[in-house]
Amino acid sequence: MQAVVKAHRGPGGEVVTVPTPTPSDDEVLVRVRASSICGTDVHIWKWNAWAEERVRKVPMIFGHELSGEVVEVGKRVRSLAVGDHVSAETHIVDGTCYQCKTGRMHICANVQVLGVDRDGVFAEYAVLPELNAWKNDPKLDPAIASMQEPLGNAVHSLLPEDNLEDIAGKTVLITGAGPIGLLAIAVAKSLGAEKVIATEVNRVRFDLARKMGADLVLNPVEEGDRIVRTIRDATYGRGVDVACEMSGHPSGFALVFDALTPGGRVSLLGLLDRPTTIDVDSALIFKAARVHGIFGRRMFETWFQVKGLLAIPAFREKVAQIITHRVPIPELARAMDLIDSTQAAKVSLEARW
Amino acid sequence: MQAVVKAHRGPGGEVVTVPTPTPSDDEVLVRVRASSICGTDVHIWKWNAWAEERVRKVPMIFGHELSGEVVEVGKRVRSLAVGDHVSAETHIVDGTCYQCKTGRMHICANVQVLGVDRDGVFAEYAVLPELNAWKNDPKLDPAIASMQEPLGNAVHSLLPEDNLEDIAGKTVLITGAGPIGLLAIAVAKSLGAEKVIATEVNRVRFDLARKMGADLVLNPVEEGDRIVRTIRDATYGRGVDVACEMSGHPSGFALVFDALTPGGRVSLLGLLDRPTTIDVDSALIFKAARVHGIFGRRMFETWFQVKGLLAIPAFREKVAQIITHRVPIPELARAMDLIDSTQAAKVSLEARW
Amino acid sequence: MQAVVKAHRGPGGEVVTVPTPTPSDDEVLVRVRASSICGTDVHIWKWNAWAEERVRKVPMIFGHELSGEVVEVGKRVRSLAVGDHVSAETHIVDGTCYQCKTGRMHICANVQVLGVDRDGVFAEYAVLPELNAWKNDPKLDPAIASMQEPLGNAVHSLLPEDNLEDIAGKTVLITGAGPIGLLAIAVAKSLGAEKVIATEVNRVRFDLARKMGADLVLNPVEEGDRIVRTIRDATYGRGVDVACEMSGHPSGFALVFDALTPGGRVSLLGLLDRPTTIDVDSALIFKAARVHGIFGRRMFETWFQVKGLLAIPAFREKVAQIITHRVPIPELARAMDLIDSTQAAKVSLEARW
Amino acid sequence: MQAVVKAHRGPGGEVVTVPTPTPSDDEVLVRVRASSICGTDVHIWKWNAWAEERVRKVPMIFGHELSGEVVEVGKRVRSLAVGDHVSAETHIVDGTCYQCKTGRMHICANVQVLGVDRDGVFAEYAVLPELNAWKNDPKLDPAIASMQEPLGNAVHSLLPEDNLEDIAGKTVLITGAGPIGLLAIAVAKSLGAEKVIATEVNRVRFDLARKMGADLVLNPVEEGDRIVRTIRDATYGRGVDVACEMSGHPSGFALVFDALTPGGRVSLLGLLDRPTTIDVDSALIFKAARVHGIFGRRMFETWFQVKGLLAIPAFREKVAQIITHRVPIPELARAMDLIDSTQAAKVSLEARW
Repeated sequence: MQAVVKAHRGPGGEVVTVPTPTPSDDEVLVRVRASSICGTDVHIWKWNAWAEERVRKVPMIFGHELSGEVVEVGKRVRSLAVGDHVSAETHIVDGTCYQCKTGRMHICANVQVLGVDRDGVFAEYAVLPELNAWKNDPKLDPAIASMQEPLGNAVHSLLPEDNLEDIAGKTVLITGAGPIGLLAIAVAKSLGAEKVIATEVNRVRFDLARKMGADLVLNPVEEGDRIVRTIRDATYGRGVDVACEMSGHPSGFALVFDALTPGGRVSLLGLLDRPTTIDVDSALIFKAARVHGIFGRRMFETWFQVKGLLAIPAFREKVAQIITHRVPIPELARAMDLIDSTQAAKVSLEARW
Repeated sequence: MQAVVKAHRGPGGEVVTVPTPTPSDDEVLVRVRASSICGTDVHIWKWNAWAEERVRKVPMIFGHELSGEVVEVGKRVRSLAVGDHVSAETHIVDGTCYQCKTGRMHICANVQVLGVDRDGVFAEYAVLPELNAWKNDPKLDPAIASMQEPLGNAVHSLLPEDNLEDIAGKTVLITGAGPIGLLAIAVAKSLGAEKVIATEVNRVRFDLARKMGADLVLNPVEEGDRIVRTIRDATYGRGVDVACEMSGHPSGFALVFDALTPGGRVSLLGLLDRPTTIDVDSALIFKAARVHGIFGRRMFETWFQVKGLLAIPAFREKVAQIITHRVPIPELARAMDLIDSTQAAKVSLEARW
Repeated sequence: MQAVVKAHRGPGGEVVTVPTPTPSDDEVLVRVRASSICGTDVHIWKWNAWAEERVRKVPMIFGHELSGEVVEVGKRVRSLAVGDHVSAETHIVDGTCYQCKTGRMHICANVQVLGVDRDGVFAEYAVLPELNAWKNDPKLDPAIASMQEPLGNAVHSLLPEDNLEDIAGKTVLITGAGPIGLLAIAVAKSLGAEKVIATEVNRVRFDLARKMGADLVLNPVEEGDRIVRTIRDATYGRGVDVACEMSGHPSGFALVFDALTPGGRVSLLGLLDRPTTIDVDSALIFKAARVHGIFGRRMFETWFQVKGLLAIPAFREKVAQIITHRVPIPELARAMDLIDSTQAAKVSLEARW
Repeated sequence: MQAVVKAHRGPGGEVVTVPTPTPSDDEVLVRVRASSICGTDVHIWKWNAWAEERVRKVPMIFGHELSGEVVEVGKRVRSLAVGDHVSAETHIVDGTCYQCKTGRMHICANVQVLGVDRDGVFAEYAVLPELNAWKNDPKLDPAIASMQEPLGNAVHSLLPEDNLEDIAGKTVLITGAGPIGLLAIAVAKSLGAEKVIATEVNRVRFDLARKMGADLVLNPVEEGDRIVRTIRDATYGRGVDVACEMSGHPSGFALVFDALTPGGRVSLLGLLDRPTTIDVDSALIFKAARVHGIFGRRMFETWFQVKGLLAIPAFREKVAQIITHRVPIPELARAMDLIDSTQAAKVSLEARW
């Protein structure tokens, strides 16, 4: 089969012919119908410091967001059949560690990540463990189906725990309107948020934030120091109830705490890449703030929430607008250039080889 | 001022002239702009067994759902001013009992109910304690503003506790599409429910259930025994995640448990009026069901949720459709006849004297 | 090996020689060191109506509470090794149904129960799926280790959901001081309950209830109608915060609601065996009661809680007192007679063949 | 009456004669029976930068932890009577702000603090709003009764939200064994924690930590870099489930995250006084950590938990051990010296004038 392979410990990737993999007893073989690019893929493509340290296995097929069709099932697989449409949960878990045994598989102590620790999905076929193959509505657009992992990140950021105050009637701040931030805006509106405020500097994403339903989109560079006051004025002077940091920028990290109402909650998703300074007393303690670090998405509570939201036509239509470009998988280099430009939100990869 | 008064311990009510009340130091005086009829008012009007036992104070102005404008404030009132638009939370609490001191004011051990234990709002003016006067957006339609209590019942049925799994992506059953059931359908859809199933026999309400966004509306008489199977088929064979009993009918009470997925949750709002038989083992224990009795709405977490939802134009428009009739307050007898007919959902009362 | 086998669809059981089972790739073989008798075993022994309907497989080794030592592991087993001390979680789950995929394995839609649907543990050896073999501290008394399932029932009754108000400083009612009720008393005290009230008619269990730490033990027959008032008087006039129904008796079922403070919560564990009448309005709705049906125990959040509690010496000592009799497994008939008498609480079975 | 007054904006305080205050309609007058010293009092005594900035009202009676007897009640007070024994919740709230109306009075947007914003309790008599006067069991030792605020801080740190996973069977780390840290150890053990690990450098407090029931007490200076490994080794290699930062030291702040199991939770109570650096990615995001800023204690859920725990004799006895010194209130200067020494844990103040 054809696949995009990281052949050497350095930038780039090559389209090469490799053997089609064989599923083990607990796995399924999937023909890839669409895939999409996550920030992790960009890091591996560029081979930055994170990739150099994190990625062990080279050569490796990378990529992990996909939708496809099951073409072969291992002999112990019971819940899936040939012909099923599936997407992948990327976190391959051991099922027996403390986290797995306490309802927190997504932070398995021995997690392996598809396309990072083992061969991924930028290929004609991919192998998935039964548990990681999520069955889709066959009528769902494959490009949207392949985006369920970042959509899950967005949902998980807004609803990180099993039992946590809902979003209904709340004010929500999303700092950073990259693909996950944009999805989070759409999700928050679908959960009955009273008002969603987003921040973004990129013009394309700024406009998309409005299309996702943000009631107020702010450019933090233009707003400067008055941004906290602007947000307070837009929230009855109270500050936001829920804030999701999705920019990975220190100013976004500072803003989610500054703009929070006392007792509000913050979800941190954007990686900051370096130690950051915070005034713990005023940001966290005096404010009785609640903070959730967001990693992956719940397996599989979040996936059911995503499935439910995608069953709503208006929600699907919004999500589709985030796909600004569609590129055949073998042209991954061009797709990476698009992401580097300021023109793209989500780039979908088509299975045209 | 003019007011509708229950003058004798028996059916009906009279429009009479009474002194305009004077607010105490902790109260405000409100000029009524609109009000609406709750089931409790019907009981008092008809003077059924419940009313005979529950109502002590006669003569009494009854009615409790209102919107109005503050025209006078007591001298200790700090959070309200003349000119503010307000609605009423009906539960007047002591603030010092066990329930009040543990975040459960809505089930105050010494609650007094407006229009039941003290003079209510079917009048030109009404007096409200500061805490019970909820400030509205002045642009909100008074007819809708006066419906925030039943809307709060609907929201509280779906989100009964502080931290409880949300509705996003869940399947929801509402048995009984009276005014609160209809509102619950609209609310569930606004909270991101994947699918809302409603049951109703009355044709007017059946049609309104669809307009509220129910994905499936079933007539339990027509469905008969196959209704559980129909609901299972509509929920991937699993049964519903959340069920709200709003019919007050034994068949609805049975159905919410029969149609529930194991581990799902049930909210009980509709009063059954008599002891009812249930197979506790199969309905509750083997199913690991979770049940919430619903009384009032949270003070004031639910009100903030209601305010947030009413800030969404599409939601407001839905709620407006539930008002099938508008009648001047002095014509309360006619309004009661409309409710007895099979033609009405919510009857709004206009302040035309 | 020797085993106690239900050979015919009727009362009793026989000690016979059967082949020692062989673990499959995902299973372990365990040498039984101790086991104990659950109510389910009594039903199967007596072959009551429930057993006739529920049990399909005969002949079958029954029993499910055990502790033992791993003597062989399947080739895919990673988290256990020969020599490990283990107990069994009885619910064998499919891992892929809706409940399993949403953190509710204990109510798996396709659950198989050890000793009910497949061979159990009243034998020299037993086979367990890796996931169901819970690793014990090797220093834990095997008799206590074998009681972790009912201990888990007790913990799960008090803490049924992931995030639910804790027991600290709360008043707790336990109706019925059978083995699980007794354990629930000990657990509630270990969780910081302010006051634990228990009800029981049997004298042996009544006395044990005190030893478990109950602050007040009431005989419901002697108390009669004044029992609700007695409980209110013992709880500042408020009623209890948490009530666990563990008697399986209609009077216990009625009492947990009557004695509850408004907004309190009820866990229902005791099976009632027949439809029961309840005044839904007063018991559930006006009281804003919250009810949890209790089935099994959470896999494996509850097991970790049990492990943690058993690490506390004072708690272990209390649990040990519940074992009123120790009988060799082959003398199961005598053990069943003891349970029928009014003299026993928990009967432990020793692996002496 | 006699009182300790901060007469000038500078260090120290004076015992002077001032008029006995008169309660307003909503207040009670309390004769002080015992009081105790909080860190806030030390700041005000020493008049550090925080005090210079925060304290507006001088001259002012300071102090806020007390127990006493009601000697006069305002005419609107219903829940208290002359002769009642009470302690004070220090946070005087407005009751109408967003936080107060959503069950979060303890972080009232307009809070006034006793002994900081208005006259406090280091006096013969003090005035308290009805809502802030917490009724005690009259048999409770006044010295212990006056410590319920810090005890509430400890409980609130362990159980910060209404519905949050309990402590039962969990491993808990407490960094810093000052008075609140010591109380937190005792509380955690009373809530069924499997293992409580504490850190402390001061020898007196180190020994008290053991007496409170800590299973492991570590001196972070002696342990140095290996402390994280030591804690992991003591928690099955997993890290702690719950960590409470009570040292106010950057090394404690770092440790609570380093020692946390993925998905665990952290409560931050100790003020750090300056911006602090944290590696957000590894400490919070990859670890899916949950963080609660702790301010005050819940009004009055936490107080009921405290009351319940204090009803347990063994718990009361532990708490009593934390009182290392008893000093008459007029000798406050000596009490402050004791706190500055390394010899004291909690200093109780006796009402001997």
